[in-house]
This record gives sequence, structure tokens and C-alpha cells, in this order.
Amino acid sequence: MRAVVKPGPGPGLEMRDVPAPRPGRGEVLLQVKAASICGTDLHIRHWDPWAAERIVPPLVVGHEMCGVVVEHGEGASGPPPGTLVSVESHVVCGSCVLCRTGKGHLCPQTRILGVHRDGVFAEYVAVPEANCWSDPPGMPYAIASLQENFGNAVHTASTPAVAGRKVLVTGCGPVGVMAVAAARALGARSVLASDVSDYRLAMAGRMGAETVFNPSRADLISGVMAATDGDGVDVLLEMSGSPEAVDQGFRLLRPGGEAALLGLFSRPITFDFDDRVIFKGATVHGIVGRRLWDTWYQMRAMLRSRSVDLSPVVTHRFALDDFAAAFDLMASGSCGKVVMFPDPADADGPLTRPPR
Amino acid sequence: MRAVVKPGPGPGLEMRDVPAPRPGRGEVLLQVKAASICGTDLHIRHWDPWAAERIVPPLVVGHEMCGVVVEHGEGASGPPPGTLVSVESHVVCGSCVLCRTGKGHLCPQTRILGVHRDGVFAEYVAVPEANCWSDPPGMPYAIASLQENFGNAVHTASTPAVAGRKVLVTGCGPVGVMAVAAARALGARSVLASDVSDYRLAMAGRMGAETVFNPSRADLISGVMAATDGDGVDVLLEMSGSPEAVDQGFRLLRPGGEAALLGLFSRPITFDFDDRVIFKGATVHGIVGRRLWDTWYQMRAMLRSRSVDLSPVVTHRFALDDFAAAFDLMASGSCGKVVMFPDPADADGPLTRPPR
Amino acid sequence: MRAVVKPGPGPGLEMRDVPAPRPGRGEVLLQVKAASICGTDLHIRHWDPWAAERIVPPLVVGHEMCGVVVEHGEGASGPPPGTLVSVESHVVCGSCVLCRTGKGHLCPQTRILGVHRDGVFAEYVAVPEANCWSDPPGMPYAIASLQENFGNAVHTASTPAVAGRKVLVTGCGPVGVMAVAAARALGARSVLASDVSDYRLAMAGRMGAETVFNPSRADLISGVMAATDGDGVDVLLEMSGSPEAVDQGFRLLRPGGEAALLGLFSRPITFDFDDRVIFKGATVHGIVGRRLWDTWYQMRAMLRSRSVDLSPVVTHRFALDDFAAAFDLMASGSCGKVVMFPDPADADGPLTRPPR
Amino acid sequence: MRAVVKPGPGPGLEMRDVPAPRPGRGEVLLQVKAASICGTDLHIRHWDPWAAERIVPPLVVGHEMCGVVVEHGEGASGPPPGTLVSVESHVVCGSCVLCRTGKGHLCPQTRILGVHRDGVFAEYVAVPEANCWSDPPGMPYAIASLQENFGNAVHTASTPAVAGRKVLVTGCGPVGVMAVAAARALGARSVLASDVSDYRLAMAGRMGAETVFNPSRADLISGVMAATDGDGVDVLLEMSGSPEAVDQGFRLLRPGGEAALLGLFSRPITFDFDDRVIFKGATVHGIVGRRLWDTWYQMRAMLRSRSVDLSPVVTHRFALDDFAAAFDLMASGSCGKVVMFPDPADADGPLTRPPR
Repeated sequence: MRAVVKPGPGPGLEMRDVPAPRPGRGEVLLQVKAASICGTDLHIRHWDPWAAERIVPPLVVGHEMCGVVVEHGEGASGPPPGTLVSVESHVVCGSCVLCRTGKGHLCPQTRILGVHRDGVFAEYVAVPEANCWSDPPGMPYAIASLQENFGNAVHTASTPAVAGRKVLVTGCGPVGVMAVAAARALGARSVLASDVSDYRLAMAGRMGAETVFNPSRADLISGVMAATDGDGVDVLLEMSGSPEAVDQGFRLLRPGGEAALLGLFSRPITFDFDDRVIFKGATVHGIVGRRLWDTWYQMRAMLRSRSVDLSPVVTHRFALDDFAAAFDLMASGSCGKVVMFPDPADADGPLTRPPR
Repeated sequence: MRAVVKPGPGPGLEMRDVPAPRPGRGEVLLQVKAASICGTDLHIRHWDPWAAERIVPPLVVGHEMCGVVVEHGEGASGPPPGTLVSVESHVVCGSCVLCRTGKGHLCPQTRILGVHRDGVFAEYVAVPEANCWSDPPGMPYAIASLQENFGNAVHTASTPAVAGRKVLVTGCGPVGVMAVAAARALGARSVLASDVSDYRLAMAGRMGAETVFNPSRADLISGVMAATDGDGVDVLLEMSGSPEAVDQGFRLLRPGGEAALLGLFSRPITFDFDDRVIFKGATVHGIVGRRLWDTWYQMRAMLRSRSVDLSPVVTHRFALDDFAAAFDLMASGSCGKVVMFPDPADADGPLTRPPR
Repeated sequence: MRAVVKPGPGPGLEMRDVPAPRPGRGEVLLQVKAASICGTDLHIRHWDPWAAERIVPPLVVGHEMCGVVVEHGEGASGPPPGTLVSVESHVVCGSCVLCRTGKGHLCPQTRILGVHRDGVFAEYVAVPEANCWSDPPGMPYAIASLQENFGNAVHTASTPAVAGRKVLVTGCGPVGVMAVAAARALGARSVLASDVSDYRLAMAGRMGAETVFNPSRADLISGVMAATDGDGVDVLLEMSGSPEAVDQGFRLLRPGGEAALLGLFSRPITFDFDDRVIFKGATVHGIVGRRLWDTWYQMRAMLRSRSVDLSPVVTHRFALDDFAAAFDLMASGSCGKVVMFPDPADADGPLTRPPR
Repeated sequence: MRAVVKPGPGPGLEMRDVPAPRPGRGEVLLQVKAASICGTDLHIRHWDPWAAERIVPPLVVGHEMCGVVVEHGEGASGPPPGTLVSVESHVVCGSCVLCRTGKGHLCPQTRILGVHRDGVFAEYVAVPEANCWSDPPGMPYAIASLQENFGNAVHTASTPAVAGRKVLVTGCGPVGVMAVAAARALGARSVLASDVSDYRLAMAGRMGAETVFNPSRADLISGVMAATDGDGVDVLLEMSGSPEAVDQGFRLLRPGGEAALLGLFSRPITFDFDDRVIFKGATVHGIVGRRLWDTWYQMRAMLRSRSVDLSPVVTHRFALDDFAAAFDLMASGSCGKVVMFPDPADADGPLTRPPR
């Protein structure tokens, strides 16, 4: 089968012919219908220190996907062949204290598709049946693929209490703008959003942000204060990984407020705990992955009730064969979510064709 | 009356004769029976930047106390003259959104005795009746004075869920060792404690710490890991204000754990949010003051049921006239709580007499 | 001034000329602009056992209102004369353990306007300044009056976690339909509603119920099960006080669900705790009044952000002089909220004129 | 092997020789070391309506046990042969929404050992490996067997917030007295207990109840009110299944208090929701089983830290061959927990020998 592979240590990715995987005990074989690109995939292509530490090439990359069940491994019982499923990319042990007490998303033995084991930018992938999430028949493939990343947004937005509250989202990449939509669906009184890219702020507006701010053009502090009658916000959802954003976000948090941090800073930062957290009596939540499986049920509720519409987030579609152009676009930042299709006939919208 | 006064900008404190205060509307006049020294008082004597920014001399200093009601101001209705009361030192507005929604301890209009208005190192002080907490007759004056500071410890220890959990207290000054006792009273499975002072670690042991660690002599990380079967701790109570302690404390926190931060760092610090908070899915609580009045009721329950005994924390008693020696001892760190008595006859234990 | 008075023990109410009240210490005098009728007022007119036990005639009745501040009593500091305010009808002591720990709505010393002290169906009323809630200038008087009752709905709907959940509201009187709207504003995935009155079900639909059920015409159990894919509901908001409704509502609650009970049953009922609560691992919340003052801030957020529109609830307006016809209509049940105006010129909509 | 069997519909149990079970896929075979009698087992022997509805004879009964792993079924990976394990008796599906969102104890597909499939009053039993809980080597068998039932007590006591609170336990059978101990270990300020049996009240005292009440001899209401300075209790743990106890328990609950209900009433009861729950703003939790696996970790913490000592609960030991006498004693109520040993040589205390 064709697969996008990290061939060895160092930058770059290649399309290769590799043997199709066989589903092991308790696994199912999936035919990949759509797969979307995440920031993590860019790090792996670029071979930054984070990637160099974790990745053992050769490895098929990619972890956001949907596909159809084509075969059961030994002992696997469901979902039946032909079912459209999305995939939870974190494979957890199921038996540690965290897995056994509702915190499986923090399992120290977590192995991630496309990072610790072969991933999804391929025609086929084998995954544990427990990692499959059945989608309703007819769900557009791009939306189905997006759920893994949408889950980060829902997990972040649902950890603080947002109902009836004023929420600031710092960082309007795809997961940021999905957090805007999730916060609104969870009953937030108003959602403000900030980013240095006007392209992304426009997307935040389409996803439900009441007011958007570009701190590269105007002071964020005074802007948000004016928009909140001088009160600041009740909740901060930090999705940018920018030290400036986190500092400003916490300045804008009212006393007794809550912050959820998803964006990674990639290094220690300088932070004023006294004024930003302690004197404010603030609560700070670190967020990783999706709650297993509470977050997936929340997503299903939002999508079925149509309180969230993810379609504005999908800005570009590519054939998997054009992965290099898709990655280049993703790296440019002038896009929302970029979805790839191993079989171009599966695309649920017009494909972007790179110049040849 | 005699009072310990900050006479003007700059270091130092003086015993002065000043007019006794008159209780205003809704206030009561208290005869001070005992008053204890807090770290804040040392900052004010020393005139550090924090103090220079806030204090407007001349000012009577001190905020931890107990006393007897001697007179009611206009409109004040209780508690009746003769009642022994402890004092909540934070005078809040009562009408802002925080005061009206159970977060009065975060009121932005808070005025603190001995910081923003005349304090308690004096024979008499006038305070709002709402700030008085009736003590049981016969409660030792030193213990009654201690409650304000004990409240910081109870607030910190009761914010994360400690029942059945392994708890690490970093920083074993008086409020740290009281947090050790509070965590035990709240059902912690075990309480570990760290400090660089062996004097303080011995006090932590007397207050209920199962194991104590001195990171200046042995590696804290490996020590705590060994004591927790390699799991780390479920809860971190950070009472030291030391950047090293907070970093090590968070390293030792297990995934999904909770941290409560009371110790002030006095400046921005370098902190690794990725590994310490986000990947761990940790929750961090900033703690200030005492919850009004939940914390006071919790203290009453602990003291009445004898699940906490504060007497080992009171290591020294001085006549208020000897305040300079009392402050010097407190600054040395070789002590627990130092309590002063305007009338030496009120001392509920032997007085330390400075060399004359 | 003119006031609607319970003149003595027994059924009935009278319009009387009585002296206007004088504001006491810490009180303000309000000119009543609008006042709405609550079920409690019907009980008082009817003189049922509940009323006979509590009411000491002669008494001015009524407790839902808005008005304008006209005078301050001694020591009262705000809001200033001319301010439009709504009134929290529960006057609490402020000093008991419940008042001091965020549960003031459960204060055992609560005195209610129109029940324990003179009420609001009058030209003027004196209330503690602490019970006044400033409204934005220009808020329609009928809406401003409604907030006290809307607060019951918001308190009920916000006590269980409704965001993303399926909610069933049993009982679609005015507070029931406001609970429908509040649950939607708080992010409920879907809100189902039941009542035996089609008039009220139509109102529930206008306030946002997705599907409504009339158990007098079709089986509620099978209807709700069909509407929830056989899962039942996650949350029950019981607003009817009907033993049949509470039994059916709990049957429809899924395992691990939450119920909030506001409707009063007026007598002990027969209830199957084993199957309805224990085997289900259900959580049940008793609801009374409004959380002081969290609920009022939640209402403000909902009304300002327009996530709730209360105007469909106000179905009829009367001059206060026509109170007897207004009460008769309210007793008939063929109405939503009935609002009365001491000065008919203040009516913010067409007045219903009874036949003379 | 020998096993205690319900041979057919109707009262009675028999010791029979039956084939030893074979462990299926994912199961382990356990040699039973100790097994304790639960109230449920009495219902099954007696063949009451609850039993007649559920039990399909012939069936090996019993569900509380510990044993040693002797064989792995296909695909089972642990714990290794020779390990001492206790058994979670509820076999859940693992794939429903409740199992996947931290509420597996409410799984509608739950199958219980000794109720829906062969149980543990036998020499051997086969159970899913996921239902095994590894015990520390050397744990006394009687204590290890008790954990399943202790888990009910811990689940009940840890659902309301008991730390620093006054707790009333109504019903002092074995699970009631273990709830007394659990509440104390979780930091309760004081634990009061009531039962109509002085034998059981004495056991409650040994397990840590501060004051005990026998409502058959003195008024419970006035007794508890006197013991709580007229405040009533903050938390009610209802373990009796008695309508009188639940009514009195709720009368004694202070406004804003929490109740956890574990005792089954076996029929609908008459209950005053208005005065007992709604006007009080009380919260009521239905409790079933043990939280999977949070409760088991809590138990481990309590037993390892010695904050709970279960040994006073085990009042009698029998050879399994003497099961009839053991059941008779259990039915008499003059005992705590009765533990049986298939091999009398395994008894960790003196055996009670019935007269022959």
C-alpha cells in the first residue's frame, strides 16, 4: 500500500510502498477514508528536538483519521466490517491506576498512532478495536476525521465551567476556533478570541467568536477590558503556546477565574505566579488529549444536535499523493484544517491540486 | 495606649504612645490579649518594595490577634462586651460580585489590618463587628491569635481533595506545619514535608508529617519517590515561595494531581508548564487569605474535635514591649509562631525575656 | 397608599388605603412599578393550611416586583434614588452559618416579603437595601418584575450539569417554561417538556422545548424513550409537584443522572427509592429560592446576552386595581405570567380590562 | 469440587459435588481461600421475590471472596498464578456509555457472581481477570474477603463531602459499621450511629462512632440534636433500609446537607420531599456497588495506612461445610461479618463449630 513515511532520522517525509498491516489480537484493520494534518505532524516532518526524541524510523506518520472497518483480528468483536469509524489516536494500557479511575487520557503507557506506532497517512491502518468510535452513516469524511482534534477543543472548553461565563480563547488555529465553537455550545455568555493572524481571526468569527482581537495591531488588554465592562473574563482557554498570550490572558482573568492550558510552550517560560494565579485565587487546568470517552460522547451530542458545525474549519482538501503540498500549506498558517484522501474519489469537497 | 508603629518610610518600627481608637459605625473596640507575628510584618519592618508600595505611615502594624470586646460603635450589635474573639484581618466590601458570590476573600477592595489601616500590635484596636469570630471561653490566647494564620493553612489544605491521598507540603514555616496538620485532619493518607531547616522539619514531624525531607542534604525527588512506591504524590501544597521547591514539587506530582500554591515568589519565575502541568493534566489552585467564612467554620470543627492541636506551633511568647526581640527571633527562622502579649499577665505560657 | 391586603384569617383579599411604609435603618423605600402574581399568592388568597400557619393579618401581600428607589432610610447607602431595581424577596439574617458559607438561600431566619412582612402589591414598599438588584435603565417593567421567579428556574436548571445533556422538564407553569429557556441557555443538548395543559405546552415550545408531551393524552414513558433513542434523559427538572410526574420523571432518568426538585407536593408521597434513585446511582437536588447572589448574576448574564428572552412568558397585564380579575385568571391556569401595575400608565404592553 | 448450591426454585441451599469450573477467554481460575456472607445471600436462601425474579437454579451462590490464582484462561495475562486476589463481584460490559465514562458500577449489563453466574461459596471459581484485585501478600484472608463489602461502605462514605463534617450513620450492620470507620478515615469531625440492636451499636463504637443511639429505647431526634448543639448533622449515610430511619435521618439533616442512600427498602415508601429535601436544599445520592476502580484504590489506601482496621467487623469464622450454621447466625443478626473457609486450615482465627 502507499503510505507517508518518515524514512530515517532527519527532516522530510516520503510516499512509499509498504506492506499493508495485519490486525493483531483485538485489533481491526481500517481502510483510511480521510486523514487530517496536525501541528504534531509538522514537527515530525521538520524533525525538531521533540520528534527526534520520540520517533523511531521508519514510521508511517499521521494520527487524525476516519475509515471503514475491513477486517477483524483474532478476538475482536466489533464494530462490524463496513462501519465508518473515527479513531482515538491514544492507545492506553487499560490497567494502570489512571486508566482504572477515569483518567486514561493521562496513562503513562500511552502509545500514539503516527508517533509510537505506525500511523494513518496510508491506505490502511490497524488499530485496537477499543480505539474505534462508530460514526453515523453518511457523516462527511472530513468531519469524521476532524473529531480527534475537535476532541482537544471540547476537552479544553469543558474543563472549566463556561456556562453563562465570558470566555477568552488565545490562539485561533484550528483547535482554537473549534474551542470557540465548543464554548458557545456549552452555554458561554460570550466568547472573545485573539490571534496575530487575521485569516485565523476571520475563521474564529465564523465559528462564533463575538469579538476578535489582533494583539499585533492593538492592545489586547485594553480591548478585552473594554469589551467586558472592565471586568475581564471568567475563563481563559489558552491554545497558542505563546508566552505573551498566556501572560496577557492571565492578566485579563478576573479574580476567582479559571484557565485551561492546551497550547504547548516547548520550553520553560517566565511567569508571575503571584499576580497571575495566587492573589487572584485562580484555578489552572492542564489539558492533554481527550477524556476517554466522555469527550467523544460530548462531541457526538454537539454534532448531532447541530450546536456545533465544523464545516467552516475544513478549508482545504488534497489527495494523499499530494501530501507535500498539503504539509506546505499547513506550515504557512493560511488555512484551517487540511484533510487528505488516499482515494481522491472519497473527497467530500473540491480538491486543491498543487502545481506540477 | 502603647502601639508598635511604622513611623515613616524606611526600615524600623517603634513603640509609641498613641491615642486609643474609637469604634466607628458597625465596629467594635477590642482590648488585644495576644498578637502573633507574620512574615508580612517582617516585610513591613524591613521596608521592602512590597511594603513601600502599600504602607502609608504612620501606621500601627500587626494583623493576627485575639482580644476581648470592650465597646460597641454605633449600630453594632454583637458579639457582646466581654466576649473573647479572634479577628479576620481582611476587611472586605460586602457588595461586589466576588463578595456576593462566595468569593469575598478575593474582593478587590480588601483592606488589611496593619497594612491598609491601623493594626493589632497595640493595647486596643477597632474592627468591623463582621470581622469578629467568637471563640469558646477559656481558649488559650496564643491559640486564639493563631487562627488567622491557621486559616491560610486550612484554606490551602482543603482546596484540593486530600482525603485518602498522598500529600507533599513544601515549606515548613508556621503555616506549612499547620497545613501538615490540616491535611491529616482532612483525611490525607500520608503527609510528606520538605524544608531546608531541620528545626522546621522537626516541627513538621510533631504536627503529623509521616516523613520529612531536607533537600539541602539529600535529593528530594528520589526520596519522595522511594516513599511513595515510585508513584509520586497526589497533592502538592506549596508554602515556601521557592522556585526550586515549586519545580520539584510539580515533578513529584502524579498525572492528574492537584497543587495548591500559597507561598509567594516575590518575582516572576521560570516554569515548565508543558511537563509540569499540561502533559500531567494537573490542576493548580492559587490560594489567598481564608474563605469567608467557610474556613473559619472548618477551623472551629478541627479545634473542637481536637483533630488538630496547634500548641506545638507556638514556640515563643514575648511581652509586646519586647517586640524588637520577638521580631529578631522571627527573622532568624529558629522558631515556630511567636506570640506577643500587651499585658504580660495574659501570657498563657512562659515568656521569653530578651537580655537587657 | 393603595395596597392589596389580607384583612384577617380566612379566604379573600381587599384593596385598602393604608399608610405608606417608612424605610427603616439600612432600608430603601421603593415605588412599585410592576408586580407579578406567584402561586404562593393564590394560596394566601385561598387561605389554605400552609397560609393559615404562616400569615399574620393584616398583611400587604405579593413578593415579585420591580420599582424605583425614592428614599433611603438611615445608614442606607445605595442604590441612589431614581434607580430601577428588582427585589430579592427573601430577607436573610446575614450572620448564621448558612448565610456565612454561601448558602444564605437556606437561612432559617428567612423572612419573605408578602408572607412574613408587608409585601409588594401596593404603591410603595420598604425593603433592605441589600435586597435590591439594580436593573439596566430601560428594562421593561414586566421583565424586571419577573426576575425573582425566573431566579427559581435558573437556580433549578443550573444545579445539575445540563451542558450537552438531554433534559426533561416536568411541569410547564411559568417557572417551568422559564426553566426550559434557562436549560437551553446553559448549553443543554435538548430540552423535553411535559404538562397536562396544551396551553402551557405551547408556551414551553415558544421558550425552546424541542418536543413536548401531554401525559393526559399519550404515554409519557414511551414518548420520551422514543425521543431519546431509548436512553432516557440525563437530567430531570421537576417543577410540577405532581407525584405521578416525579415517578415518571425518575423512571425516565438514565443511570447516573441528576434530578432537581423545585415543585412542592404539599404532602408526603409514595416513592420507590430503590428503583428510582439507589439502583440508578442518581443524584437528587432539593431547590429553594435563588442562590444569593450567584443566581442573580447568572440571570443578568442570560438577559444581557439575550440567550434567554422572557417576553413570551408575560401573557397578561392588569392594573393593580383589577387585582381580583388578575388572580382569577392566574387561578384558571390559562395564562403565563400575570403582571400588575399600580399605575396603569407604567404598563409596558396592553392591559387586560375585566368586564365591569 | 464442593459448592453451596441453590438446587431449584424455593427456599434452601445444599452442599453439592459439582464439576470445577474452567476459566474461559480472559478469565482466571481462583482457589477460594475465604468467602463472607452478605444479606443478599440470605435473600437467595430464603427465596424472596427479589431472588425468585433473578436466580436461575441450579446456581453456586456467594459473591464476597478472596482466593489464589491457579490457572489462566486463553488470552488472560495477569495476575500471575499464586497471587492472592480479592474479587469485584460485578462483571460489567466495558463498552456501554456508562462503562466508558467512569460510571461502570451502573452498567445495565452487570452480571453479579452468585446471582447471575456461578458464585464463590465453593472450592474454585472462574472470574474475568479484570475483576481481580491483587492483595498484598500476607493480608489475612478474612480481611481480603471483606473488601467487596467494605467497598460499599467506602463508596457511600466518600460520595458526600464528609471531611470536617458531622455524620450520622443509620443502620449498623456490617456495612454500616464499616461506613462509620470509612467516614472517620475520610476526616469526618464526628460520626454518630443509630441501630435498634445494642450488639451492633457496640460494634459501631469499636469502629469509631463517637456516640451511638438506639431509637427503640430513646428518641433519636432529641438525642442527636443534643449531641450536635441543636444543629443536626451535615451528612446522613443511610444503611438500614428502614422507612423510619430514613425519615428521622432526613429530619436530622441540616439545611444544605447531603445524604447517601445505600440501604434498600424493598418497596415504595412514604416520604415527605417538601420538608425533608426541597425546603432544606438537601442533596441525595443513590449508591450502588463500588466505583470501578476508584473505590478499590481508596480501600487500599485506608488499609495500607491503617486509617481503617476491619478486624473488629469479623466476629465469626466457619468451615464452608458448616455453611448452614453460618447462615443461621447471620440471619440472627447477633454477629458482624461471618466468614467461611473451604479449607478450614486457611482460617485466620478460631472457627465456630456448630453442635452436631
